[in-house]
Amino acid sequence: MAASAGPEIERLISLLAKLPGLGPRSARRAALALLKRREQLLVPLAASLAETAEKVVSCSVCGAPDTRDPCAICSDGSRDNGLICVVEEAGALWAMERSGAFRGKYHVLGGLLSALDGVGPEHLRITELVGRVRHQREGGGGVREVVLALPATVDGQTTAHYVAERISGPEVEVTSLARGVPVGGELDWLDDGTIVQALRARRPA
Amino acid sequence: MAASAGPEIERLISLLAKLPGLGPRSARRAALALLKRREQLLVPLAASLAETAEKVVSCSVCGAPDTRDPCAICSDGSRDNGLICVVEEAGALWAMERSGAFRGKYHVLGGLLSALDGVGPEHLRITELVGRVRHQREGGGGVREVVLALPATVDGQTTAHYVAERISGPEVEVTSLARGVPVGGELDWLDDGTIVQALRARRPA
Repeated sequence: MAASAGPEIERLISLLAKLPGLGPRSARRAALALLKRREQLLVPLAASLAETAEKVVSCSVCGAPDTRDPCAICSDGSRDNGLICVVEEAGALWAMERSGAFRGKYHVLGGLLSALDGVGPEHLRITELVGRVRHQREGGGGVREVVLALPATVDGQTTAHYVAERISGPEVEVTSLARGVPVGGELDWLDDGTIVQALRARRPA
Repeated sequence: MAASAGPEIERLISLLAKLPGLGPRSARRAALALLKRREQLLVPLAASLAETAEKVVSCSVCGAPDTRDPCAICSDGSRDNGLICVVEEAGALWAMERSGAFRGKYHVLGGLLSALDGVGPEHLRITELVGRVRHQREGGGGVREVVLALPATVDGQTTAHYVAERISGPEVEVTSLARGVPVGGELDWLDDGTIVQALRARRPA
């Protein structure tokens, strides 16, 4: 890429290109938009990133990013301590929260087991999860159920099996999100795997 | 969107979503990537944006963003002052520079005429272009040719016609980039308009 715009802009473009969803071409478009909208976008985004870098930490209990530790959800007394939802990343946690259907606590693994990418159990927050489940059990609070909300991919299911094995015990039930046809989903557009799973798990209408 | 991640992260997501190429969903993914790669991405990007906001200005001659004024291209004595390439935005300027085929100067309009979006000549740097052409002519330097490198869209062509009319004169030639089949372009994938133009402008093989 010609350095016609000066090293500062080239550096900005190369950093933007590292964001998921932006390639070299769209990073240039994004940089251009930032330069055109200096006061509305460039300056506020710079400030917001600096504030995030300064204030946001990982919750020492669940691993979710927040400005306080323990995070807002972990310190929320009205939420069920006996129910822990295990997710891959904070993005899945946010999706669960948007659904408004879950009133327990979370545990963010920080990734998935992957032989291909060399991600082993020691790279994920699995020991911390085992510790939480065991500690709460011994403390008397009691974790009744761990819901595995991991992706329906090979790595996701490998991780789910591993986690289930590590935390299973007589006092704790380990469950998974149901598989099936998504709401609004048309059969025409669904992959075979989903249809097979939806058929196997069919219920009385 | 549930504010489960705290107002700082929500604000970061909403700012990222304003970048072209990122929607609400991909902005969340981008925020997540930034949080995961704090030292490699979040902190450098915050610094790069702050530096850009502080140092990069619009060149008072051609309108391109750069850290100095006049910009590197305008102050490059080895480039042809008699040849000005008119572009919509700096992105097009960067594309021309990457091609390495142009050794003149540039003029960035800052947009295109658009009745629909209410963009008139007074919103673009057209008066500045007329001034540059006239000034250089009077100063004896002489602008021989203005190359219009504007998009092959309705707005682009409207703008090209308007600019050509404003700067045309006996001493200055106004040209446009050629239309035709792009290098590596297969006819199957080309729109009819391009094929019509390529046929009309056919040349001896």
